[in-house]
Amino acid sequence: MRSPFSGRLMRPTQLLEIPTPALLVDVAALDRNIARMAAFFASGPCRLRPHFKAHKTPEIARRQLAAGSCVGVTCATVGEAEVAAALCDDLLIANEIVSPDKCARVGALAREVAVTVAVDSAAGIEALASAARAAGVSIGVLVDVNVGQGRCGVEAGAAALALAKQAASAAGLTLRGVMGYEGHLQPLRDRAERETKTREAIRGLVETARSIRAAGIPCEVVSSGGTGTYDISGRVEGVTEIQAGSYALMDADYGSVGVPFEQAFTVLGTIVSRPSAERCVADCGHKSMTKDHGHPSVKGVEGAHVTALNDEHAVIAVPASCTLSIGDRIQLVPSHTDPTVNLHDVFYAVEGERVVDVWPIAARGYPEHRQ
Amino acid sequence: MRSPFSGRLMRPTQLLEIPTPALLVDVAALDRNIARMAAFFASGPCRLRPHFKAHKTPEIARRQLAAGSCVGVTCATVGEAEVAAALCDDLLIANEIVSPDKCARVGALAREVAVTVAVDSAAGIEALASAARAAGVSIGVLVDVNVGQGRCGVEAGAAALALAKQAASAAGLTLRGVMGYEGHLQPLRDRAERETKTREAIRGLVETARSIRAAGIPCEVVSSGGTGTYDISGRVEGVTEIQAGSYALMDADYGSVGVPFEQAFTVLGTIVSRPSAERCVADCGHKSMTKDHGHPSVKGVEGAHVTALNDEHAVIAVPASCTLSIGDRIQLVPSHTDPTVNLHDVFYAVEGERVVDVWPIAARGYPEHRQ
Repeated sequence: MRSPFSGRLMRPTQLLEIPTPALLVDVAALDRNIARMAAFFASGPCRLRPHFKAHKTPEIARRQLAAGSCVGVTCATVGEAEVAAALCDDLLIANEIVSPDKCARVGALAREVAVTVAVDSAAGIEALASAARAAGVSIGVLVDVNVGQGRCGVEAGAAALALAKQAASAAGLTLRGVMGYEGHLQPLRDRAERETKTREAIRGLVETARSIRAAGIPCEVVSSGGTGTYDISGRVEGVTEIQAGSYALMDADYGSVGVPFEQAFTVLGTIVSRPSAERCVADCGHKSMTKDHGHPSVKGVEGAHVTALNDEHAVIAVPASCTLSIGDRIQLVPSHTDPTVNLHDVFYAVEGERVVDVWPIAARGYPEHRQ
Repeated sequence: MRSPFSGRLMRPTQLLEIPTPALLVDVAALDRNIARMAAFFASGPCRLRPHFKAHKTPEIARRQLAAGSCVGVTCATVGEAEVAAALCDDLLIANEIVSPDKCARVGALAREVAVTVAVDSAAGIEALASAARAAGVSIGVLVDVNVGQGRCGVEAGAAALALAKQAASAAGLTLRGVMGYEGHLQPLRDRAERETKTREAIRGLVETARSIRAAGIPCEVVSSGGTGTYDISGRVEGVTEIQAGSYALMDADYGSVGVPFEQAFTVLGTIVSRPSAERCVADCGHKSMTKDHGHPSVKGVEGAHVTALNDEHAVIAVPASCTLSIGDRIQLVPSHTDPTVNLHDVFYAVEGERVVDVWPIAARGYPEHRQ
């Protein structure tokens, strides 16, 4: 599945040489974001387990781990964990893994590194335990508690305690604690509302952990939080680690939530059409960035905004005075990091106009399907 | 960028063995769609140039070409054309290509196959002509006319004629005709409205071709149409070829437009959580299918509908009587073909529960960025 022509292309040394559309990462901004988050967690009892799903890029995870304050890496899929295992020996798959094939892969991985997986059902516990026994390993588990998002997770309290007891007694598994992701609260723009609702959501999680311990079952880990709530959940007493991911690269959506991180990635495009004084069309469309959190914004062009993001085109309204013309490069700021990065094979790492490296997005898509 | 574990996986022979999420193509339904479209164009003076961008999959293009009625293949990008050149010796890139690097790749391609590219500006003509001269080839061009979509394209009439004259006189280029894509009319649900507006939109395109010929310039090609309008544009006198693509695989959006093609692809997922009687969660989220044309529909589960499509999860409301349980497989029908297929590396070709082949989506993403 290599391009028949890929061997002919030179590695670019400056922006203008990169074939568009392409994903750019501003290395200095990325490093500042990573350092800022590491500094926040340097002081507290709560630590950071940065989420690999946001970037799927070993070089970014390597920088996150090198910055300190991390207890390991969070992943969303087994495919991500298989890639991240080369970087880190303590992985959390913060997601339910239930299929025999996936559980077997977790078992194989657990021979090499410590792996913990979220569970929210008796069937899920049995599937993982069975794979652990087959592989001759112990797999860690966190009971996934619904903290209000209404997706996966058991209810806090009695249901969670019952599941914890089952997990703790399952041969092959080690109950390590609980997790709950307040995904529905990440985008709340009002800081006071976000704080109040997050503390309330996390309270049930922490109390569930206490009730498990009160039943005589070890429950060391309480995992929660995202980029919108890391400094709220991360300061709730009893929370031991935070799963934030988007903070490293950021996006236009989180940018309007008011968190102290910089926009560190963009999609580079080329103006391919200027049909009128008020309209430009760039070659970076919906196959190069998603629009599930809204249209991208246009970086550094006064008065310009995206009016349509079609499969292959971004249609951009510009003031008539705008000098953008055919062949010019443009950078768009995606509205949502994770699914946008997932569309690309590499990041071009840039410092200003200079391309300093090319970073494979090694866990893009579903690596198990690659031939 | 191979999965470190990919070598360990067996090629699946049945649905249950496929790691999820995964893209399935129903080979029989695909072949019926392809045959139906080929039959429509077998009788008319207008022919079919199926759009590769919809599937990016050599095996599907091969079947389209084998079914007959095709004058070649349409592509949206140079990367697609480089892959399609192995299948077909007459390619249309129905899109503006303006960067020196991309134009040089078109020049290289034109040494191997006939390549025609859309142009809508003097700068675009000069960039392509320059690359053609450097490569010692002739590159075909179609003047791209705005037929109402308001994206790329010059206005019909005088502006298009002026550009045609420039293209016809540019050393290195061969003016082959005009194109106009009525993308804004594809989704109109009312057939009568779609017919009236499409005929009206295409009239200006056909008249532009006549005015170019009246100026003594050859203009053999008039290219237009999509899956929603192929049987309208394709029967307008003067239109010579149709660029439809989605008809082969179809999606839930086109499915509600009333075109005579079957849904031929789905995303396969696994139920990973059943937190309540009324809710299931599957592992096929927004990284496995887009939601720009709405949520996917659920195949074959009475009363089930998707209520949220998050990055890694599809949240599905089900009747309490629904027997779906953890570990069960489910198939979702994506709302939009092109960007969904673009998320995946392969199609699993299935006949009922049997996996009969695995087809690489060779032009997924931007092949030029692969290392």
